Amino acid sequence: MTSSSVNGNPELRKDAVWNRWVIFSPARAKRPSDFKSKSPTTTNPDQQCPFCIGHEHECAPEIFRVPPDDPNWTIRVIQNLYPALSRDLPEPHHSPSGSVLHGFGFHDVVIETPVHPVQLSDLSPPQISQVLLAYTNRIQQIASNHHSIQYVQVFKNHGASAGASMSHSHSQMMALPIIPPNVSSRIGSMKDYFDQTGECFICEIQTEDLLIDSSTNFFSLVPFAATFPFEMWIVPRYHSAHFHELDNEKAVELGGLLKLMLRKMSSQLNNPPFNYMIHTSPLHGNGSELAYSHWFIQIVPQLIGIAGFEIGTGCHINPVFPEDAAKVLREVKVPESEEST
Amino acid sequence: MTSSSVNGNPELRKDAVWNRWVIFSPARAKRPSDFKSKSPTTTNPDQQCPFCIGHEHECAPEIFRVPPDDPNWTIRVIQNLYPALSRDLPEPHHSPSGSVLHGFGFHDVVIETPVHPVQLSDLSPPQISQVLLAYTNRIQQIASNHHSIQYVQVFKNHGASAGASMSHSHSQMMALPIIPPNVSSRIGSMKDYFDQTGECFICEIQTEDLLIDSSTNFFSLVPFAATFPFEMWIVPRYHSAHFHELDNEKAVELGGLLKLMLRKMSSQLNNPPFNYMIHTSPLHGNGSELAYSHWFIQIVPQLIGIAGFEIGTGCHINPVFPEDAAKVLREVKVPESEEST
Repeated sequence: MTSSSVNGNPELRKDAVWNRWVIFSPARAKRPSDFKSKSPTTTNPDQQCPFCIGHEHECAPEIFRVPPDDPNWTIRVIQNLYPALSRDLPEPHHSPSGSVLHGFGFHDVVIETPVHPVQLSDLSPPQISQVLLAYTNRIQQIASNHHSIQYVQVFKNHGASAGASMSHSHSQMMALPIIPPNVSSRIGSMKDYFDQTGECFICEIQTEDLLIDSSTNFFSLVPFAATFPFEMWIVPRYHSAHFHELDNEKAVELGGLLKLMLRKMSSQLNNPPFNYMIHTSPLHGNGSELAYSHWFIQIVPQLIGIAGFEIGTGCHINPVFPEDAAKVLREVKVPESEEST
Repeated sequence: MTSSSVNGNPELRKDAVWNRWVIFSPARAKRPSDFKSKSPTTTNPDQQCPFCIGHEHECAPEIFRVPPDDPNWTIRVIQNLYPALSRDLPEPHHSPSGSVLHGFGFHDVVIETPVHPVQLSDLSPPQISQVLLAYTNRIQQIASNHHSIQYVQVFKNHGASAGASMSHSHSQMMALPIIPPNVSSRIGSMKDYFDQTGECFICEIQTEDLLIDSSTNFFSLVPFAATFPFEMWIVPRYHSAHFHELDNEKAVELGGLLKLMLRKMSSQLNNPPFNYMIHTSPLHGNGSELAYSHWFIQIVPQLIGIAGFEIGTGCHINPVFPEDAAKVLREVKVPESEEST
């Protein structure tokens, strides 16, 4: 625990990954252990929706399913019915140079389970690994066939206030013809660190009081300058630039740690709406990026909104010190029986 | 109207001010003229709160009031009861070099009216000018007395879902010991443009189909790569780096245009929650910044949330093309009788 979190004074910390300041302001909050979501997400167990098994005809076209061609599928990757980018526009032949670009790209949905009331964290580690491998397979497909796609953002919105328009458990993948701003700034910061030290910043990350849990190849922590209260990262111990190179065995292990983090978050924070984002490297970056870019998963419970200050400055106010959030998350117990599935 | 907005295809545009891509995706939206807030803000006319006249003793200490020392005040500038930064910490003597900084700074509240049900847009242009001049006076006070403060962010949160914890009309000012990320990137982009062209980007801004309204010294527009649907900017025609140099006469004119924009937004979009932010220049920047940095006001109605994609990429999806939003806002009528106050 830092001295600041003890004496309650605010502190500014610079996040090294995105190179931006965050204001830690404990005076604005209750005790870290008292933080709970005021709008927990709920699912109606009897509900049926277009993502449910048997309703496939109500969806946009399927890209693939797991297992292939099986009517008793466990996972489906489909087109988004309201895509933000269009796969029907002509594919650009070279990198964007001006300030306007046709909106070519892919916006896909990964249906994580055939049945409505099941959430991702209810699945077993091997089942979650199949979702993670659906992401990697779809990224590999896109990378092989569409050289104009520069970055694929995998993300999950859980709960209406976190942006989910469907309550059936799903995640999304957006394949972009540009490198998005947060990716450029992250790769730029990591390059600067590498140029100064010869090391990958994420490989060298100091966990100390920030560690939550760990397994053989992965660990979870609250980042030193977390943008959001109880934000968590899951980081591979081994150096890897591209999430889509995850192998089957590590995917099961990662599935186990992701499940544990989601269950800890749900238990501690009253099943909050949340987002997770997979931060990886541009598909066709320059070769040297591979040395200093290192993928990780960011999990963000939606506990506080953003307002004029954040929109104006790009600077966030976090009422919970990362060391305090990590301590709470390290110590929260989830029921044994379910954890062992 | 662009061809894209006619044929409904998505388009990416790079915002030149913050140097970030925005995805315009009209297929995800209803017609621009049908956009309405689903959670309009309401005020209880009979409510009393600590910001009401007669309740001054329930507030944190006052900094100044307008008119000075008058029990029948019209505006009060007070300390925030739950400040994100602390004025009681020792003031740093030099610019931040490491990645941790004590949270010294000021977090003030501007109470815009003594009575509860009155909103900023209900005030007359001269009354609104007094609010704007309260901002400039407070910035000047801070700039004169606290050399460690590098930037003052003025912002207004209106409505609970836009971050307002009090419904009594107010705005906030946060005085920071750092230059926040969005300000650094904006000043950097403007410097690049100036180095290439010898001109201030904002002085040269093309309005064409993007203009909403104008007066002698100011105009309002929807920016070419608006981050949010129906986002509006109010821009001074004359070159000025610092908002806090606004004079009394121009403040009345600006008050009139701000009132008109707020009333148009409220009328067209069903009194949505909103934020506005004043984008100005660092207080003690290098002298050359004065040539290419140009202040403006950004008004953002809160119509759509941000979710995993936006948190992950820093790239926003806007369902309304700026030319379409500008046309709607240009044409919306507000009642004559009230507009003339």
